[in-house]
Amino acid sequence: MSTSLPDQPVAMVSVPVYFFDTDAAGVVHNIAYLRMIEAARTKLAENSGWPVLEMTKGIHGCPVVARTEIDYLKPAKLGDVLEVTSRLTRMEKVRFFITSEVRRQGEEIVLCRAVQTLVSVDLASGRPKGLRADWLERWPDLVATK
Amino acid sequence: MSTSLPDQPVAMVSVPVYFFDTDAAGVVHNIAYLRMIEAARTKLAENSGWPVLEMTKGIHGCPVVARTEIDYLKPAKLGDVLEVTSRLTRMEKVRFFITSEVRRQGEEIVLCRAVQTLVSVDLASGRPKGLRADWLERWPDLVATK
Amino acid sequence: MSTSLPDQPVAMVSVPVYFFDTDAAGVVHNIAYLRMIEAARTKLAENSGWPVLEMTKGIHGCPVVARTEIDYLKPAKLGDVLEVTSRLTRMEKVRFFITSEVRRQGEEIVLCRAVQTLVSVDLASGRPKGLRADWLERWPDLVATK
Amino acid sequence: MSTSLPDQPVAMVSVPVYFFDTDAAGVVHNIAYLRMIEAARTKLAENSGWPVLEMTKGIHGCPVVARTEIDYLKPAKLGDVLEVTSRLTRMEKVRFFITSEVRRQGEEIVLCRAVQTLVSVDLASGRPKGLRADWLERWPDLVATK
Repeated sequence: MSTSLPDQPVAMVSVPVYFFDTDAAGVVHNIAYLRMIEAARTKLAENSGWPVLEMTKGIHGCPVVARTEIDYLKPAKLGDVLEVTSRLTRMEKVRFFITSEVRRQGEEIVLCRAVQTLVSVDLASGRPKGLRADWLERWPDLVATK
Repeated sequence: MSTSLPDQPVAMVSVPVYFFDTDAAGVVHNIAYLRMIEAARTKLAENSGWPVLEMTKGIHGCPVVARTEIDYLKPAKLGDVLEVTSRLTRMEKVRFFITSEVRRQGEEIVLCRAVQTLVSVDLASGRPKGLRADWLERWPDLVATK
Repeated sequence: MSTSLPDQPVAMVSVPVYFFDTDAAGVVHNIAYLRMIEAARTKLAENSGWPVLEMTKGIHGCPVVARTEIDYLKPAKLGDVLEVTSRLTRMEKVRFFITSEVRRQGEEIVLCRAVQTLVSVDLASGRPKGLRADWLERWPDLVATK
Repeated sequence: MSTSLPDQPVAMVSVPVYFFDTDAAGVVHNIAYLRMIEAARTKLAENSGWPVLEMTKGIHGCPVVARTEIDYLKPAKLGDVLEVTSRLTRMEKVRFFITSEVRRQGEEIVLCRAVQTLVSVDLASGRPKGLRADWLERWPDLVATK
């Protein structure tokens, strides 16, 4: 039952800015970035053996966002195509951390950066579960030592 | 166990326009009205003995939107306070119809009008249920005769 | 200044269902489909020489949704990958019509179908503009004759 | 032209949980809280002489969210009525800080808490402005001394 996990727990989605992402100030609204980041985070999870159906029905529980820290550095605008990258950066016994960055396609400058703390929760009981062992084994450099 | 249903199956919510409701064209985005209308429709249901917990756990099933027709007549803007009125307008054996209208506070002109067809669905089986009898009895003028 | 318009005014986007698209009834929420449809419609417009920046700054005005009719036929769920197709189906002097359909990837059955009426609006004045001539010339079969 | 600012820069909105706020895990989705918090924050601003029209057209600039830190402590669910309180907690020369808390109506326990950093931006130039002097004068205890 070995899933073949990738070398690097990272994923990228490319998303155009739609009118519904923007607001009357003429830029992407702060809440809209969190949808884009969830898209990249979902792809990272799927690439790492944790697709959404496994989250609701499987043995590993459902990753629930326990904390978001997000910095809005530069505005994105209508007409931009954004690249959103999510990377697993740290694992503890229960919690794990994903950093996401938003850039314009082909540019280096980070428009928005989020660090999210997630906890795997058993949806039936609502209680936290230990983080899946295959992740801890696959990326030992990311396991917090204290 | 008689719920006391209101004389008129109608409800109104008053909602300011927030930045997240608007888009880069400087007006309320077409999708945002549907959140406001769901708020008014939810209040209509609650006032009529069908609060959301009854929808997911109760005997009457969950009203599911089967069709929306919505006309965008005049734009709403940041700074407006909107009044959204939802009214039950027709009942059939399974389907029922709610008309919602959006106006600026204190004004007559309709900015947006939606007619939604709903069907009560048993969430466990996913199958439609007959419309609750107490509604049919309470507002006989709204029962479709053919 | 000839834009090279495509033979067929149609576009498709492929979108996974994310948690934020779903609701507590366990299915995709009715409002979420409208974001997916805007994504497909935006791609159709861009492929047809009307990218979003042209909408806000250009000579053809901004297409504004004047009416949406949407039928919810079958529920989509977490784990589905949806294909959303938007097609220009009719053009009048001022209004034009786009039909969008949502299917599961690789399946024929339509989960959701929307017909939207759009009007090109000059954002500065808020007034409607005639539909761009190059569209009328490119797809004459879609021009309403009465 | 003295606006009469309130003694305490705090505001509360009461919001039912709607289906569109929830997700397939059966709880309020993490992104939905940010809409509720924007509602409370907007009311706080309006009560404090900074209504949304002043934000886009006035002399004080538009408060833009530069950073959000949000902790999700307990899940809210369908059927809950939530009370969201926003409070101005600190002012610097350019930045100011608002803390928002979400509780169930009539309960003490905090379900969700956010600290947001805002900067007033001149929308025309996109450049930050100094925080409005009347706020600094009205609530001197909140002015950061270093």
